[in-house]
Parts: sequence; structure tokens; C-alpha cells
Amino acid sequence: MLSSLSPQKLGLLGLGLLLLIGSSEGVPQPKAAWMRGARARLAKNSKWNSKSYVNGSACVETSPPDFQAPKENVWDGLTNWEAASVTQWLFAQADLNLTRSDDAGDWDNSVLLVELMMPNKSDVLPYVDGNATAPTRYAHVVLDLRATDSPTYSDILVGPLPVTNGTTTWQPLEYPYTRKTGGSIRNLDADSDIIMTDFIYPITANISDITMDLWGGAAMGADNDTLDVWGIDPVWQYDNKLTRWDTFWNKNTDVFDAETLLPLGLFLKTDVTGRDPANWTFEGWLYNDIFYPTTADFRKAYWSGNFTKLGANVEGDWARTDQQGPVPPMDTASPPSAIAPSGARYSVDQARKYVEWMDFSFYIGFTRDTGLALYDIRHKGQRIIYELKLQEALAHYAGNDPVQSGTAYLDSYYGFGPYSFQLVPGYDCPSYATFVNTSFFVSETTHTHINSVCLFEFDADYLMQSHTNSAYTAKTKNIYFTVRAVADVGNYSYLFSYIFYQDGSIKVEVRASGYIQAAYYANNQDYGYHIHDSLSGSMHDHVLNWKVDFDILGTANTMELTTNVPVTQNYVWSDHPRNTMKLQRSFVETEDDGKIFYTDNGRTQYSIINADKPNKYGEYRGYRILPADGTIHLTIENSSNLIDAANWAKYDIAVTKQKDTEPRSAHPYNGQDVYDPVINFDKFFDGESLLQELGMHHIPHTGDLPNTVFTTAHSGVHFMPLNYYAGDISRQTVNMIRINYDNGTVSEVETFGQQEALCEVDLAKEEFDPFSYTGDVVIRKFPYDPNDPYFETDSII
Amino acid sequence: MLSSLSPQKLGLLGLGLLLLIGSSEGVPQPKAAWMRGARARLAKNSKWNSKSYVNGSACVETSPPDFQAPKENVWDGLTNWEAASVTQWLFAQADLNLTRSDDAGDWDNSVLLVELMMPNKSDVLPYVDGNATAPTRYAHVVLDLRATDSPTYSDILVGPLPVTNGTTTWQPLEYPYTRKTGGSIRNLDADSDIIMTDFIYPITANISDITMDLWGGAAMGADNDTLDVWGIDPVWQYDNKLTRWDTFWNKNTDVFDAETLLPLGLFLKTDVTGRDPANWTFEGWLYNDIFYPTTADFRKAYWSGNFTKLGANVEGDWARTDQQGPVPPMDTASPPSAIAPSGARYSVDQARKYVEWMDFSFYIGFTRDTGLALYDIRHKGQRIIYELKLQEALAHYAGNDPVQSGTAYLDSYYGFGPYSFQLVPGYDCPSYATFVNTSFFVSETTHTHINSVCLFEFDADYLMQSHTNSAYTAKTKNIYFTVRAVADVGNYSYLFSYIFYQDGSIKVEVRASGYIQAAYYANNQDYGYHIHDSLSGSMHDHVLNWKVDFDILGTANTMELTTNVPVTQNYVWSDHPRNTMKLQRSFVETEDDGKIFYTDNGRTQYSIINADKPNKYGEYRGYRILPADGTIHLTIENSSNLIDAANWAKYDIAVTKQKDTEPRSAHPYNGQDVYDPVINFDKFFDGESLLQELGMHHIPHTGDLPNTVFTTAHSGVHFMPLNYYAGDISRQTVNMIRINYDNGTVSEVETFGQQEALCEVDLAKEEFDPFSYTGDVVIRKFPYDPNDPYFETDSII
Repeated sequence: MLSSLSPQKLGLLGLGLLLLIGSSEGVPQPKAAWMRGARARLAKNSKWNSKSYVNGSACVETSPPDFQAPKENVWDGLTNWEAASVTQWLFAQADLNLTRSDDAGDWDNSVLLVELMMPNKSDVLPYVDGNATAPTRYAHVVLDLRATDSPTYSDILVGPLPVTNGTTTWQPLEYPYTRKTGGSIRNLDADSDIIMTDFIYPITANISDITMDLWGGAAMGADNDTLDVWGIDPVWQYDNKLTRWDTFWNKNTDVFDAETLLPLGLFLKTDVTGRDPANWTFEGWLYNDIFYPTTADFRKAYWSGNFTKLGANVEGDWARTDQQGPVPPMDTASPPSAIAPSGARYSVDQARKYVEWMDFSFYIGFTRDTGLALYDIRHKGQRIIYELKLQEALAHYAGNDPVQSGTAYLDSYYGFGPYSFQLVPGYDCPSYATFVNTSFFVSETTHTHINSVCLFEFDADYLMQSHTNSAYTAKTKNIYFTVRAVADVGNYSYLFSYIFYQDGSIKVEVRASGYIQAAYYANNQDYGYHIHDSLSGSMHDHVLNWKVDFDILGTANTMELTTNVPVTQNYVWSDHPRNTMKLQRSFVETEDDGKIFYTDNGRTQYSIINADKPNKYGEYRGYRILPADGTIHLTIENSSNLIDAANWAKYDIAVTKQKDTEPRSAHPYNGQDVYDPVINFDKFFDGESLLQELGMHHIPHTGDLPNTVFTTAHSGVHFMPLNYYAGDISRQTVNMIRINYDNGTVSEVETFGQQEALCEVDLAKEEFDPFSYTGDVVIRKFPYDPNDPYFETDSII
Repeated sequence: MLSSLSPQKLGLLGLGLLLLIGSSEGVPQPKAAWMRGARARLAKNSKWNSKSYVNGSACVETSPPDFQAPKENVWDGLTNWEAASVTQWLFAQADLNLTRSDDAGDWDNSVLLVELMMPNKSDVLPYVDGNATAPTRYAHVVLDLRATDSPTYSDILVGPLPVTNGTTTWQPLEYPYTRKTGGSIRNLDADSDIIMTDFIYPITANISDITMDLWGGAAMGADNDTLDVWGIDPVWQYDNKLTRWDTFWNKNTDVFDAETLLPLGLFLKTDVTGRDPANWTFEGWLYNDIFYPTTADFRKAYWSGNFTKLGANVEGDWARTDQQGPVPPMDTASPPSAIAPSGARYSVDQARKYVEWMDFSFYIGFTRDTGLALYDIRHKGQRIIYELKLQEALAHYAGNDPVQSGTAYLDSYYGFGPYSFQLVPGYDCPSYATFVNTSFFVSETTHTHINSVCLFEFDADYLMQSHTNSAYTAKTKNIYFTVRAVADVGNYSYLFSYIFYQDGSIKVEVRASGYIQAAYYANNQDYGYHIHDSLSGSMHDHVLNWKVDFDILGTANTMELTTNVPVTQNYVWSDHPRNTMKLQRSFVETEDDGKIFYTDNGRTQYSIINADKPNKYGEYRGYRILPADGTIHLTIENSSNLIDAANWAKYDIAVTKQKDTEPRSAHPYNGQDVYDPVINFDKFFDGESLLQELGMHHIPHTGDLPNTVFTTAHSGVHFMPLNYYAGDISRQTVNMIRINYDNGTVSEVETFGQQEALCEVDLAKEEFDPFSYTGDVVIRKFPYDPNDPYFETDSII
């Protein structure tokens, strides 16, 4: 076990490398152009920095001023040097017995992750709010320890950084987890490759007579197989055994990721407990809801002459996303689009990933597990939210077959960071957006997603404010600001938007597109619609969990509930008791009250207030949490798949006290031991910070073919100021108009000093060149090779 | 009573005018330019019809082809000729004893409304779906009959149209109403003017010593009063008495409609039963929750020396919507905006108010009571919705004072049509939108709101579809189409949007802005937040009711419920019972099942399907009703204000069978007799068409000052195809891109034949000239005077 190693001893072992790494002298310097620009705006999008379009009547896109964040971004990952030095240091620790990922076999230890350890809030606040120095930096390292009969994933801390002679050590990372096993959890994946090649494929190859007959293909484990085999996630962990259920899928035959639409309806059960292949056992076949305990039984039945053969799901245009069908009238003409005639009206410190837009400011963070996050969100200089971060996304399926029934993806296991791909200007974000790169560590390399976060202002298609009477009309535009990333975790595409409004409100929005994971259609009418020849739109719940650490006028906050209740009431002024309504106000006072289900008819307002800081009228200043666009919790109660691995999914809102030891509600390896996960959220609960769910029930129908669409598969939550300012703070914008008129004559037009863009916009200059799309850029960290970047993008499918 | 008159007799009386009116010869012709253009695009917005910008590299805004609706718009109101001829015919009916509105006193009969009687669906379908002739047209006329001790509002039908010798008659209009009193209901407003001038103002003037002392003003009924007096709506109807509660308000001192923010906290109760002023009685004062039965009591207490005087609400910048406070950084620069480089990609038959966008088509209707409505909404030529129409909007307040407690506005009484004001291009709608005029009848005139409905395409700030892996990225734009009107019914501004998406879905959205009706702050902490000096943000529920008459593949439709339920289930393939979930499907079969409350956790899908038209997989083709953005029903149970006047507000969805005799769920005069309203919705219910609620609880807070903002005060419902097509119909658009790439190199870019707008857009040409704002244009109908249009806009405040 890793926890038996001595941190002190390992620290000493690291010594030899320190001078080499800690200094920039004698270390290769990056020279590639993309690398020097990685934290700056890319060339294509750098036009706001020039004034070259200032001629004639062309619109002048002014440059934001030179701009620097007030503090360092303490949440923005390791520097390239830090990541390289920590990696080198790790490989110098002989007791870790590490092998480079490319060379590692099933019985070798390797490094899975080198990332910044998110600093404790208690260490950060004296820095961002005061004059303290920045918190000491540590690397969070995940080791894949497989050189043992009991393989583990082990989280350790390496630091302090920079790596220096004698002071840098490692220690097990346990304090942020409810499971107290020295930061280690069993690794169920240690033999995943050999299980396929040496165990599963021989079983599936053995029935190639049947698969050829049914589907014209075989699953031999060969490159030219037309069939794929995979199944449940996480594996069954009943009775201390590890049980797999796998099924056959037709592979897609071209670039389109249609495979999850092509299940074939034959399932196999195996017991893969332990590391000794001799103990792995085949346990049976399932087809058309009939279970065959042995291959002989199945083959005998199959060739018996009265076996019911069901259809196959075969790729076709129905499963491809390209244009098809008659083009709607006038659709080939260019549609409306958005432009920014004055350029960016916000400031971005690309080096520190710090943004100011109107009265808002925030820092951007990015991690492997959950991708984009925002920190220290302030309005008018006053922090509203310390941390706004996705914690986990669950996609829990159900079905009459064991694969759909057994599937409960906890997507941080795969990671949102690795799959937050390059965005396409003019599509994912307006062509005038500012783009930011993001990076993650894998296999001793740093992968950089070019232009993977975008920032843009947008003119909503509806106003912020409007009022008209016979004497005047007053209108205020609703210009908002969005931070966006899109993560394709396998078949699904998650679009995450953080939206800031001039009324001081902030919205978190998630939309889902991409390929559904469909079920084979057989006897499962109760689990989904029949959507194609042999296809069922397998019902599933998406539940996503965000941590929202509110700091309303300080860190001591309270959740207030304000509920509309019908009452029958007597009044001094009425002879009759009256049926009317009232407000019922209360605070969330205990842990148990913190497990919140939305009340019916939306009758309760949830707000985070500072009970010590009432406004001049005695009302608490706060922010209201307004569920938008259909938020849900998990339908399933006490899921047999999840046990304690995703207890956050049970509630709509969970309120817990902020503690440095409880920074996250979920851990990517929770699925490795669902009975004793790394973080069991139910073990939290004291009363102050807030975790907020989003989600959607999804019963796919034909309209989900070939892809689910973002329009209706979405969920959101809106945080709006509640009695926070003396009035509507959007009155500060000049993007309004007032027209006074009478009997057809306008007497006054007031536009409040706003500039009018009466100029020409050259759309050709806005156009993104799709041939410039590159995907990810990779730099090797061990050995460190910054001068040899290469392009390589990895995806799950 | 009107119903005692003989229609036949009146028909004959109309005879003399018919030739004059029915013929266009000898009748004045409109000559004003605005009038000839009223149903065509106005000059400012007619640029899509020209090609004058085709030069150099300027964007070419192509013209839509000449275009005509397939049928006449049978829902689009009366023609000018029809309205004038019916009005003249009415005034010729001696037994109606009509007086022109401008001349009518409290004891005269007048004409309130001349409007098209919406044709019965059963008469329309043979026309729009077949070769039948258009339904015979009738005018729906509302008479204000006050020349009687028992004044009534009386609905009659006049027709058939055109008015012709001997055939045009009138008849009481009763069949669409559940109340069977010949289309008549008592008129509680008959003496509203005299009640103020002769009864209320003398009472309030009598305490001017007190009002001067408290607020430095008086309510004398004089033009220079600084105080206003008004109160509950509808009046109390307890015990067959009519009881008013009024209160004092500071008037706003400038153009801003701040009065509803300026209540003063003194209330007076009066009994105004009957038409004889001698029977009207003053019943007491209320101040600071103390009731004084007589003015003498109140005055004695007031000047006693130990009376508690509370503060006043006085207008200031806090109550005005103009820009104030520090301008946010960079806010004066022009913000992003939307452009349409190829012009309109849709077709509008302005004469028939018929629109085609992509695969959608529909007709636009407009009525006094509820404004904008859509008819015969089709996708790919197949009707989805016959009628999509607002029925009523309720704003139900509560409070510890009788005015807030007694206020339950049924806004169709005031009407959405009269207050659907001219829109401002670049604000309410993009500058490139197409605008449509709307008209309503009042006081023998037709008022035309110039540019009061807008139509526009918009590029959502998020995609329709997205999927990326290491080999390709595929993205589809989300270009949608919106129909919009904004109605300012008094203090509030309702923004109505009907949004069409390329995935075949349709969204109804309502947003609220404008001035809240606030309460005086005294002893009412349980009814709202304390939001300004002496101001409480009076809690209220907005509940809006839409009729959505679905025709899914025909008129025989069924509502299906599909619910996600947690289950513990045994499977042939598992030794353990499993905690999972299933779908529970059922139909709404009986009337009582049709009163629907949304289930918790959004677990139920509501869909309208055609049980006789399954798709090839046996699933029902339909449209799903997806509540969006927080839909609610009324908090209050058995409201003492409403009794039976708004029973539609009790449910989230109500499903009733479509009947020609039940075309509407509400009537604008329901508040005239809440115990026996014209339409008591609870008397419907049989099982087929659908009525859908939207709404929002509103507990105003400081951010509602000076105006509520559209961003968070909103509600919506989304109708999406469910198993309706074989796949996602948005695959038909060409506004998509696929980029194939590998290791940093793009191998293929597919853009599906869409045009690229690589041209220059001159924003100066898009700019709306705010000095061209006019407000409404009025044409007198009796005497008919089409050549003398004048500008006049009426608003409630």
C-alpha cells in the first residue's frame, strides 16, 4: 500500500533533480509559436488588438487597455515548468517504482495525473482579500499502482512547489475525502486490457458462427472486426465480486460516432474478481430476455431450428448528423448572425485567466476531472461566489437488459477536461468571441486544447426592461456576457455556459447534444420508446452537481426559504375571513434541513443571505437561487448501481458548511468502490455553503436520432440579487433609449451617451477559416521536450 | 334587457344603410400614406424588397418572392369597411338607443366593441383543409347598456357580413359562454365616473386637512391634485353588495409612470351598491391597521396629539428608469448586435397576415381582449396547432391592507389589444425584423398600432447540435424564428414571444417588466419585502392561460402521460432485486383526469398524441408539452376576490374537449359577477383540446425598483415533436459544418451548400430613426372618416 511509504524518505530521494528543474537555466525553452501564444489570444482572434480596420466608414474595433489581474490566479493549474519538474521528481522516487505510461504493462505503476492541488479557501482568502502572500503550491498527483495483487488509484500531494532541494516531499492525500484509506482506492481497471484480449474476446470469438449468422460479423479483438463489445459502468460490485455485463455493438463504418445507436441485443456475463485470470469465469448469455448459463446451451438453442432471431441495428443516414432531407425554403441564404462593431467591451488577462466585464470580475480555472470552473466572482468588487464548479455528472440508465440497467456513468471518471475540445468560431461561439486555451496532463504529457473556452458578449433577443405609455417608451437592452466550454465525454456533448447579466444575476446552463446510448429493442417497452428498427431510446436521468460557494458580504452566510402559502385570514377591515396568501420565512438551520427538494408549484424562494448585513430597510441582502429550465434530482431511489457513490444526486439543493476538508462532493474514482467511495456526500452536512443540482430526465424519442438537440435537452439555475442593491443595478447601463412622444410627434430622444455604430462591418474579416482547426497540441513532460510539440487529440469514441 | 329585443326587427331596421355601406362606390377612400401601407411593410423596413445595396462588396439582401397565403385569414378581424358598416348599422337600430361614445353620459347606451366574431372551428376546417367556401362572417359587438336601472354589458352577434339588405340581423351572443343570460352581464362600471366625482372625491376632499398635513397634498378631483385615489379590482361582491376599497397614491410628477410605487397607506371603504347615489355610503377609514368607522372618528384621532404618523412614498430617481449611477466600464461603446446579411429568409403575406418560415406556416390573429394569437400552425404542411392564443392574465395580490388584498387583475378586462404598442427596432426586436400593424376598435374608431408585431429570425447563442471526437467535429446552428408583441397593460409590460425552431418545436414565452404595484409598508412583513422608505414589494402571482388547440395528424387527439417511476425489480439475469426506474404510461381519459398538476421532480412527460396514427415502430406520433422557465398555478385556494371568475388558474394544465361552444376559458367581464361569471371554466371538461398555464410568483425586492426586469420574471412552455418524425427534422438545415481532421490537419470541410456572407454590412442603413416613432393612428368609423387619420395613443396610466 502506498500509505506505508514514508513521505520523508521519498522527499529525500527527490533531491538529485531539484536544481536542474527548479531553474530555468539549461532547461529547453519552448519555441513553437502556438506555445508562446498559448495563454494569449490566437492570431485569428487577435484583431481586437489592432486598429487596422480604422479606415473610411469601417467599424472601429477598439482594443481593451493593457490589463492585469489584481492577483495571481491561484486556481489556474500548474505551469509547464511545475508539471515537468514534478513529473521528473516523481520518476526519481525509486520506491514508487514508476514506469512511463507508454511502456507500462498491467503490473507496472504509472503516473495518471499531475495537476495543481486546489488551495484551501482558508489559505486563499488572506491573499485575494488582503496582503498575505499567495498560498504555497502543491501538486496533486494520481498514481496508478498496479505492481501489486491489490492495485490502487492513489492520490498524493507533492510539494511545496517549486520543487526544491530537501523541502519537496510527497504525502498521501486524504484530508479532502470522507474515505480514510490514505488517499487510495482499489483499481478495478488494472486488467481492463487483458480482460478484453485474453478473456472476453475468446468468448465472443467462440460464437462467431452465431454472430456471423445474426449480423454478418465477429468480435475477435482484431482491427477489422465489425463488432464491438463493451458494457456496464461501473461494474457490479455485489457480494464482493466484480461482475461484468457486456454486449455487442455494430461499429460505425465511417467517421460518424454512431456506434452507441447500434446495439445488437446479445449480452454476456462474466466474473472478473481478482487479478488471476484463472479465476475469471464466464457466467452466461442473454438474448431476447432468455438466459443461457453456458455457451453450449446458447449454441444448442440457437441452431435448434426454433430460435427467435431478432433484427440488427445497422448504420445508415438515420444515424449520421450530416444534412439530409429536403433543404427548407431559403435556408441556403446566410442566416442572421451577431457582430461586435466596437470589438470587445471586456478585459481579459490571458496569462492569469482573469476577466472583467462591466461590474463583474472572475478568474477561470480548469481541471482534468470537471473542466471549466470560475473563482472569486465579484460584482462591483464585492465577492458573490468564491467557487462555481461542476462536481460530477451522472447519466443513469435503466432497462430490461443488464447493460442499460447497469449503466450509471459518473463522467468525471473519464474527465471533462480531456474532452473539452477546440471550439468553432461562428458556431459554438460568435465569430467575435475571445478564446482561451486550456490544458490537462496525461501520460507524462500536457495536452492543450486550443481555443477551448470562449468569452463573448451577446445581445439577447429580448430586452432587460421595457415600459411604454401614451407619453413615452423606455427600453433597456439586455447585453450579457457568456463563458463557455463544450465537453464531449464519449457519445454526449455537454455545453456549459456561465452567463452574466447587467442586473447582477448569473446563470449556469447546461445543454446536451450528441449521440444517445440506445438500447436494443426487445421486451423493453417500459424503459423507452421504440425509435428505430431494433432500437429503444433507453430512458436515463442526467443529473449534474455544481458547487456554488456563496460569499455574500463575507463568508458567514445563511440560506433563507421564503414560501408562498395559501391562508384563510381575518382582518380588522373585513367582516369575512378571506382566502388569500402569505409569505412564510425560515432559515435552513440544521444539516438535515440542508437536504432540499423543490416544493410543488415553485412556491419556495431559496436565497443565500448574510443575516448580519441587512439593508437599510432591514431586509437581508442576498442572492436568490432560481431553478430554470427544469432541474431534477435522480428518479431512482437507492440505485443498485451507485449505492453510496453519488449521494449528491438525491437532492435538488444540498446546503453544507464550507470546510477545507470538504471541497468536493464527488471523486472521479467513486465508482471503483460504490460501497465505500472516496467521497460519500452524505457524510458532509453542517449548514453553510451550497451545492446545487441540475439535470434532465431523458426518454429519447425519434427526434434524438441521429443526435439529441440542445434546444430542449437543457437545465439551468439562475442566481439573482435579492434585496442586494438599493434598486435594479441594470439602471447603470447606457444601452437604453427613452422616446417621449405625443400625438405622433417625438419631443425627446434620450440615448444616455452611448456610441452609435453607424459604420460598415466586413463580415469576411469575421469569418473563421475552418481549415485552421487543429485539435489538441501535446508537449511531453517526461522527458521534458517543449520544443517538439505535436498535434494529437484523444477522444473516448 | 337586451335579450328581449327581437333580432328580426332590428335586422329590418338596419336596412336603410346597407347599400351605402356595402358598396365601395361613393364611400370615402383612404388616402393617407400610412393607411395604404398599413398591411404592408413600412417604408423604413421595406429594404428587403429592394436590391439597392447590391454594389461592390456590400451584402445583398434578397427579396422574398411575391407571395400569397393559400387561404384567406379568417381570424384577422374585420376590414375597415366591415367595421364601419356594422357601426353605422348599429346606430340605425332605434331600439338599441345608442349614443356616440364621446357624447354618452352615465345613462346612455354605447358601443364598446365591434370586432370579428371568431369563426367556429367546425366551420373553418372545411375551408382551410378543403374546398369549402370561407365561413360566413359575423361581427361580435359589445354594447354598454346603461340607460336602465340594471345596466349590462351585452354581447351580440351582427351578421351575416357584409351588411346587406334584409339579411343582416343581430342576436344575443350566448353560445360560447357558460352563463346563460342572453350574453348580458351586469355592468359595475356604469357609474364609475360619478362615483369618483360626486361621491369619493368629496370624501377625500373632506380630509384635506389631514392629507395636507401628512403628504402636503389633497385629492379634490382637480387637475392639479398631487394625490390620486383608486383601489381594488374587482370590487367586493360579498352579500350582494358592492364594496369599494380605495387608497391614496402620490402622483408621479414627470413622464415616468411611478405612481404605483407611491402608495400612501390611507384606505377608505365605501358601499356603492345600486345606481342611486343616495344609497351609496361611506363605511370608514383604515390607517396603520386601525379602522375608523367615521371621518369624525378618524379626524379626532388624527389631531389627538398621539396619532402615529407614518412616512410617505415620494417620487425620486429611485422610481425612474433612466440611466443612473456610474456607467460600467466600456459600456458606452456599441455592444454586439444581430444582423441579417441576406435579408429575410421567410415570406410574409402582409395583407393576410400569413407567414412561412422554413417548414412552418401560420396565420396571425389579433383581438382587443388578448392581442396577438396564432392560427393553423403547420409544419411541413401538416397542422400541429389550430389555435394558440392567450386567454387571460391574472395578477393576484395579497397583503394586510384591503387594496392589495383585494386586487386580482383580470387583464383582458383592460385588454391586451389596446396596449400592444408600437415596437422599437433594435430594442424590442432586431433592426432587421419585419413589422406588422395591428388594429382594435374603440369609441367608434379603429386604432392602428404601427409596427406592433415583429417577425424575425435569430441566431441563438448556442447550437442546435454538436458532436466532436478526435477525427471530426459536427455543428448545427440554431437559427430560430420569433413572433413578438409587447403589451403594457397599465403598470406592467408583458412581452409575448412565439418561437419556432428547426427541430419542429415551438415555444411560448412571456416575460414581465415595468412598474410593480407596490404596497404601503406598515405591518405587512408577511406579504412582501420592505423595499423602499415606506414601500412593500407586494407579493403577487401572475398566472396566464393559453389555449393550445392541438391537431396532431387530425383533430382526434389524446393526452398521454409518461412518468419516470422508481421501482425495485427482479430480472431473469440478476440474482438480486434491483433498484432502478421504469416508464409508466397512461392516457388522460376522463374530465377529472384533465385537471393536471405538474408532478414533483418533473417526472411526468405530457404529450398530445394521435392514438390512431402510430409511427412505423408503433409509437404514437405527437407533441410533448415541456414546461420551461418556471410555470405555476395560483397559490391562493378559493380566492375571496375571484370566486368562480378564474378557475383556469387553479391547474397547471387543463385538458378539455374542443367544442365550438367552449372556445375560450375566460371572458373580459368575468369580474363583473365573480359568483356567476360569463365563463366559469370549471363547467367545461370533456377530454381533448388543451389549455396550458404559464406564470410566475412575484415577491418584488429592491431589484424591482424602478422596474421589474425581463431576465428573471418569465415563464414559458415548449411544444416539441415527440416520435413525430422518423428522426431529428433539424437535419434538413444546411446551416451546419463538419470538419474532419487528424493530427492537426484538416482533411475535409463540409458546409452543405450554404452561402457565405463575406460582404460588408452598413449598420447606418439598419439604424432605426427614433424620431419616426409615432404611436397609434386612429380612423373614425362613425361617422366614417377614413381621410382624416390622426395620431392618438391611449394607455391606462
